[in-house]
Amino acid sequence: MTRRPSNLDPAIAARLKRDEHGLFPAVAQQYDTGEVLMVGWMDDEALHRTLTTGRCTYWSRSRQEYWVKGETSGHQQWVKSVALDCDGDTVLVKVDQIGAACHTGDRTCFDAGQLPAVVGEPPTPVGAGERQPASGTADAAP
Amino acid sequence: MTRRPSNLDPAIAARLKRDEHGLFPAVAQQYDTGEVLMVGWMDDEALHRTLTTGRCTYWSRSRQEYWVKGETSGHQQWVKSVALDCDGDTVLVKVDQIGAACHTGDRTCFDAGQLPAVVGEPPTPVGAGERQPASGTADAAP
Repeated sequence: MTRRPSNLDPAIAARLKRDEHGLFPAVAQQYDTGEVLMVGWMDDEALHRTLTTGRCTYWSRSRQEYWVKGETSGHQQWVKSVALDCDGDTVLVKVDQIGAACHTGDRTCFDAGQLPAVVGEPPTPVGAGERQPASGTADAAP
Repeated sequence: MTRRPSNLDPAIAARLKRDEHGLFPAVAQQYDTGEVLMVGWMDDEALHRTLTTGRCTYWSRSRQEYWVKGETSGHQQWVKSVALDCDGDTVLVKVDQIGAACHTGDRTCFDAGQLPAVVGEPPTPVGAGERQPASGTADAAP
């Protein structure tokens, strides 16, 4: 596995599961509106910089370099909070996004990409307002 | 690159960028509250099933099989909309999540994983309420 040198806290590094390139996806979400802005990639050092500088840093897979979001565009992502998921292979970064998150100028990277989807309808529950499954066990871990 | 047989619309398949395992991340978001519930992985066929059945289907990397979310737990994800991102390597699925998204029983996979982060503060703009960068060009594509 590719691993670049990093100053990330070893206790956090020990919880990460990385792909063969040493990377994991990072979801950037606008902290107040809940918009999912983009998904970037981080390695240990990008996460370290994101946790310690107040600004999102990603690893650019195309350019093979660190990328401080907004460094050239001015469209910074100011970090509000960072969470690791249950199996340590994804982070969620809540940010205050200045301007457009997308390089196309759209607010989010998903604005222009709607796909035709069948809308699912949960079966009407027996008890009105019922939102919990009646029975069953937790899913196996992904 | 690994590619399993798929019935996905070729026009959509042509827009996808997959990793060497034929996969791309899929962010599941609760459609009304905006909660980011989890990140799973899809291949072409998982996306096809998600687009056509009204329920989220993922590819389980650990079990190497398709995985209809909630099939065993009852914690289904009912699809509201699906969008592809600007460079075709991530999808955002807005869903109605029944019960817990996480196999731990938490509502989201990020509930238990807060990391210590420095909170960033955008500089106070000269014009009060100013939210656009004063100048600059769009970021290069990731």
